Amino acid sequence: MTHGKAPTTPRSTLVITAHAGDFVWRAGGAIALAVSRGEKVTIACLTYGERGESARAWREGRKLAEIKEMRRTEAEAAAAALGAEVRFLDAGDYPLPVTQDLTDRLVRIYRETRPDVVLTHPRDDPYNGDHPAAARMALDARVLAQAGGYPSEGEAIGAPPVFFFEPHQPEMCGFRPEVLLDITPVWEAKRAAMECLATQQHLWEYYTDLGKRRGVQLRRNAGPHLGPPHATYGEAYMRPYPQVTEELA
Amino acid sequence: MTHGKAPTTPRSTLVITAHAGDFVWRAGGAIALAVSRGEKVTIACLTYGERGESARAWREGRKLAEIKEMRRTEAEAAAAALGAEVRFLDAGDYPLPVTQDLTDRLVRIYRETRPDVVLTHPRDDPYNGDHPAAARMALDARVLAQAGGYPSEGEAIGAPPVFFFEPHQPEMCGFRPEVLLDITPVWEAKRAAMECLATQQHLWEYYTDLGKRRGVQLRRNAGPHLGPPHATYGEAYMRPYPQVTEELA
Amino acid sequence: MTHGKAPTTPRSTLVITAHAGDFVWRAGGAIALAVSRGEKVTIACLTYGERGESARAWREGRKLAEIKEMRRTEAEAAAAALGAEVRFLDAGDYPLPVTQDLTDRLVRIYRETRPDVVLTHPRDDPYNGDHPAAARMALDARVLAQAGGYPSEGEAIGAPPVFFFEPHQPEMCGFRPEVLLDITPVWEAKRAAMECLATQQHLWEYYTDLGKRRGVQLRRNAGPHLGPPHATYGEAYMRPYPQVTEELA
Amino acid sequence: MTHGKAPTTPRSTLVITAHAGDFVWRAGGAIALAVSRGEKVTIACLTYGERGESARAWREGRKLAEIKEMRRTEAEAAAAALGAEVRFLDAGDYPLPVTQDLTDRLVRIYRETRPDVVLTHPRDDPYNGDHPAAARMALDARVLAQAGGYPSEGEAIGAPPVFFFEPHQPEMCGFRPEVLLDITPVWEAKRAAMECLATQQHLWEYYTDLGKRRGVQLRRNAGPHLGPPHATYGEAYMRPYPQVTEELA
Amino acid sequence: MTHGKAPTTPRSTLVITAHAGDFVWRAGGAIALAVSRGEKVTIACLTYGERGESARAWREGRKLAEIKEMRRTEAEAAAAALGAEVRFLDAGDYPLPVTQDLTDRLVRIYRETRPDVVLTHPRDDPYNGDHPAAARMALDARVLAQAGGYPSEGEAIGAPPVFFFEPHQPEMCGFRPEVLLDITPVWEAKRAAMECLATQQHLWEYYTDLGKRRGVQLRRNAGPHLGPPHATYGEAYMRPYPQVTEELA
Amino acid sequence: MTHGKAPTTPRSTLVITAHAGDFVWRAGGAIALAVSRGEKVTIACLTYGERGESARAWREGRKLAEIKEMRRTEAEAAAAALGAEVRFLDAGDYPLPVTQDLTDRLVRIYRETRPDVVLTHPRDDPYNGDHPAAARMALDARVLAQAGGYPSEGEAIGAPPVFFFEPHQPEMCGFRPEVLLDITPVWEAKRAAMECLATQQHLWEYYTDLGKRRGVQLRRNAGPHLGPPHATYGEAYMRPYPQVTEELA
Repeated sequence: MTHGKAPTTPRSTLVITAHAGDFVWRAGGAIALAVSRGEKVTIACLTYGERGESARAWREGRKLAEIKEMRRTEAEAAAAALGAEVRFLDAGDYPLPVTQDLTDRLVRIYRETRPDVVLTHPRDDPYNGDHPAAARMALDARVLAQAGGYPSEGEAIGAPPVFFFEPHQPEMCGFRPEVLLDITPVWEAKRAAMECLATQQHLWEYYTDLGKRRGVQLRRNAGPHLGPPHATYGEAYMRPYPQVTEELA
Repeated sequence: MTHGKAPTTPRSTLVITAHAGDFVWRAGGAIALAVSRGEKVTIACLTYGERGESARAWREGRKLAEIKEMRRTEAEAAAAALGAEVRFLDAGDYPLPVTQDLTDRLVRIYRETRPDVVLTHPRDDPYNGDHPAAARMALDARVLAQAGGYPSEGEAIGAPPVFFFEPHQPEMCGFRPEVLLDITPVWEAKRAAMECLATQQHLWEYYTDLGKRRGVQLRRNAGPHLGPPHATYGEAYMRPYPQVTEELA
Repeated sequence: MTHGKAPTTPRSTLVITAHAGDFVWRAGGAIALAVSRGEKVTIACLTYGERGESARAWREGRKLAEIKEMRRTEAEAAAAALGAEVRFLDAGDYPLPVTQDLTDRLVRIYRETRPDVVLTHPRDDPYNGDHPAAARMALDARVLAQAGGYPSEGEAIGAPPVFFFEPHQPEMCGFRPEVLLDITPVWEAKRAAMECLATQQHLWEYYTDLGKRRGVQLRRNAGPHLGPPHATYGEAYMRPYPQVTEELA
Repeated sequence: MTHGKAPTTPRSTLVITAHAGDFVWRAGGAIALAVSRGEKVTIACLTYGERGESARAWREGRKLAEIKEMRRTEAEAAAAALGAEVRFLDAGDYPLPVTQDLTDRLVRIYRETRPDVVLTHPRDDPYNGDHPAAARMALDARVLAQAGGYPSEGEAIGAPPVFFFEPHQPEMCGFRPEVLLDITPVWEAKRAAMECLATQQHLWEYYTDLGKRRGVQLRRNAGPHLGPPHATYGEAYMRPYPQVTEELA
Repeated sequence: MTHGKAPTTPRSTLVITAHAGDFVWRAGGAIALAVSRGEKVTIACLTYGERGESARAWREGRKLAEIKEMRRTEAEAAAAALGAEVRFLDAGDYPLPVTQDLTDRLVRIYRETRPDVVLTHPRDDPYNGDHPAAARMALDARVLAQAGGYPSEGEAIGAPPVFFFEPHQPEMCGFRPEVLLDITPVWEAKRAAMECLATQQHLWEYYTDLGKRRGVQLRRNAGPHLGPPHATYGEAYMRPYPQVTEELA
Repeated sequence: MTHGKAPTTPRSTLVITAHAGDFVWRAGGAIALAVSRGEKVTIACLTYGERGESARAWREGRKLAEIKEMRRTEAEAAAAALGAEVRFLDAGDYPLPVTQDLTDRLVRIYRETRPDVVLTHPRDDPYNGDHPAAARMALDARVLAQAGGYPSEGEAIGAPPVFFFEPHQPEMCGFRPEVLLDITPVWEAKRAAMECLATQQHLWEYYTDLGKRRGVQLRRNAGPHLGPPHATYGEAYMRPYPQVTEELA
């Protein structure tokens, strides 16, 4: 929307995730695209995924502190590969508790980063309760951050659009691709970020295949002016709020 | 999408409706916006709405041919006010039959107009069976027109995005505003087109109010950079197919 | 609604069903209640259920004409037990075709009976395609009968409320009890009508049990002023259109 | 239902809302109608809406206590204009916490007011988390209040019907008008109550338009006996529990 | 699945319920069937249903401790009649709180019993908040018990299939029979277990009728090779997770 | 179900598809598995997919008869590779018409093949209207074939379970994997059948990837006794009718 005056600061994207690896598999392309346009991306990881997403490390007998450090190091490398800033709230996973204190910390991040776009998990996931917990706090904090009367530092924000990124088992989470994002130009950056996550190496090919499949679907829905059928990579998103636009396209 | 070379012809919008007045109340803003950008808009009215949407004329004792002529004249004036071309297929309303012949006529219009965007009714409407009938043929014809093997004149088309415009009782038709289009710049044109429909004068204020209400909702969802709260008018749409995009916004 | 003047004729109920037995099992209580209030009830059976609902008769080697006659005789006895008029359109079942001619015959019945209430099948039934076919024609005809321009005998009608009665396997048909009707005062009449259907004797106890179960549910939802827990019988319905009322209760 | 003996006390309606203004915009007509029939209406406002629904006051630099006082004064005037009693639980908004203590306070109000009808928010609202929080506690307390074993003062109640009133963005909250209440006879009282809410003056016309629109829809669904098309005002509701009735209408 | 080596221990079923009687009415047949195959069944009752499910006892003026003892005695007798072990967590009902401590106790039971099959309540029940609370903790604990990093005694488990048993008002809880279990061979055992629950004698016939009705539905869906129509009893279940199989049948 | 006597003939599977290639991509594993157990599989292709699924052939300038012959030859080779019989009804695609005559031809095939299991398309597909048309006729014919009174050759059949196979864009067709079939033992046969379809070579890798992905999901849902994580291939299905079983697993 261009009713107001153009912002003098670069656009800002806020990504809120449950675990340290989520932003790579699910939104790495969107992050790299925003960075490639000169925009700022901030990733808030509520936990390191130290208990629920580090099965191999536990089987290898590692300790909690060690695992958290491993996950942190990997995630920082992946964020660097994408050109984004990552913050860890270290709230403890499996289960990630939904608390007012944690929600309040997210409100402060909203008011500091003042996002133009918000990315987070969808509301349902029968395979991992931390994902809905993160989504709920991300959505609640976004609404609270808009209220002038909410007693947090920083000025109240506007109502940034929200995109839910794709869960691991989309059909079981009520996930329907409503937005297909063409991430072909930044595919190499996303792949590089994935390869920073050594503890989840079994997912590299899986999410490369997913990127191709969403690319096929993207081309199938891309309308009359798409060029020749070269390799396209895509990411899928849902919108919990209506798209606001000045042109149907 | 800009993968392919830019089209040398202006963008084309195809609007397929059941009755002569539908394109004004439901999509007049989108049509006027496209025209204001120098694009071409073609409206295919499957019927004049002579039986189902002309209650007052029947109460006044008018005859079928006379009513069809009235509706045609009004609709042509409204299309002119919006800057669009309107065609009448005169298939007979109440009920509008779903036939392969009529679907085939729409395939030919798709291949001739080669739309970049398609607007039509949503799939369900418990108050008016003609609307779903029109939607079904519009959607079927769009798929058939894409098939190289379909035996119609003209070259196969791509897969243009489709938008469902808002029905009269949205909540009863499963209609959820997924896209809010800002039609403020062309509001006067839409109002002028509405005023061409003298036989439905009771709807002028009703749809002016709806435009305002969708404008309020648009501002509420418009994100951080929207300007001061002046009068905004909106139209609401649904997408049956995923949005394809190069940027989340 | 009492905005207009009170009608001088008794209230009229129109029941449209696919097969000859449906009105008994599914709406016998509602019919008997209306009759008990001095109202007129007209049942339009689109078929006798001669092919799809007469398994035993076919196993016994009976012929088509004989089976139709049996079903007709039974249904007339059941309608008499309820105090309603029954008409047979003899459109042929399994499959019941959806045609404009048959829909048009229903329009004429709407305009003749001028119903205050309409009862029919719900829209979906994966076990019997005739039921959705009947529902579709019943709903389409109701809309057409309201149009002044529709070329049928009789004057255009208003918009009578519609109730979907309960299918045999409710959970598989998307049926949710939205209205629980207390049929306790006329239970004996419903049971007597069921016993007129000798060819489906295996259903007598089944639908008596269902009546009790809906009665239990009715009491559970009946609010603070319901009396002592004596035997209550109920029937369940859905509303495809909103209830219009002058009081929330 | 009239199975039991008629209650000797007037009928009682309990309205449970998140914020001080909700009962006016969403249910003012239902409240005024009940009062006009000599019934008692009690409104339980869980908060004053001091943080989330008082944007202008915060922009003007007012303090928390001052804002709460303003909202209280306005709401009491509006309740008086409708003829209802209002109570404030002052639980703190944005976010309204879901707690067992607050639920327990509602149980006591249920057992004291012994409602025949309950009005509250629908279960979902992606724009305001306080509304679902209020709905959840209102619904939980209603179930607890029915249990003889629940350790609260007062006698266990029956199962009063519940109506969800209309949220600000109905289509985004899964709200479908299932009940259309004719509030024409008390429209002036609802408008007067709205005008008591000076801090939300921008909503007066908005909700007047909504009342008209629901009135149009009401007439469209009102059946055959509705009178001439004079101005009708309506309010829309949903039912989470089945309607129990002795007559289909 | 037979990829791995056959387990040397008998198969294990874990049933998690809110109240002491739930396992009898809703899953008594499944429990008795498993026992009849030589398998082990463990029932974890989160509460005795002392406040919410013991209306008659409260009306008779009994005290809390007495009611809990009555319910416990009855439930132990019913479990014995079915051949299963029952454990009581005594967490307090109406409302049953959702807590991390209680969830953790369930994790320990998962890791101890190592279930091959899990039975619990469906996720929604507008008539009883304890049922969804129990379901939520049962599902959360199942996921946590699978995580190697979760700090509980016992080894991480696999992902046992889950079945939701049928609630009292299925259609109001979004319950659709996805699995129909033939419990005819153990019907007598289920009936005997029901008769252990003297405080809920009014439900004996109700759930006998339900067993028959699900039996009728079972036969209707049972495919081509079902034998003669003798009395069949059934129980209905839903699956929140996909069925994994080596053969479509 | 084993209530009746064991059938003396081998089990029979009937696969009904819109186009010649569908049975390979979507159900090749299920077909090969059934054949590997000594069962009979009959595939009824309603069309060759000559217009809608043969884009490359049309671009190469081939004629209709030639394309039909190519598709037939390929499909016969693929069926042979799977060990199944294939029949072509040559009803004409794009659009595949829904007619009573074609439905009747399917009734005869049901009564001849007497299937224990039926596989077909899901009910919705916004990308290809032929798929829902085929599904509708397959489902209607199955119900008609069960009616003793339906005037077709052959004896009435029982009610075989139905499985919907996975469409090309599952999330857009409301497809949720309800059954995950382990096709690892016959993967090579499915791949060989795919390679018979030279005109759709671009899909070989796509559906190999899909098989792997469904295999990953299968293992994730496979419960506690699955063996070591070797390569697993899967196919996903939905059930429109309840599963009938003697054991929860």
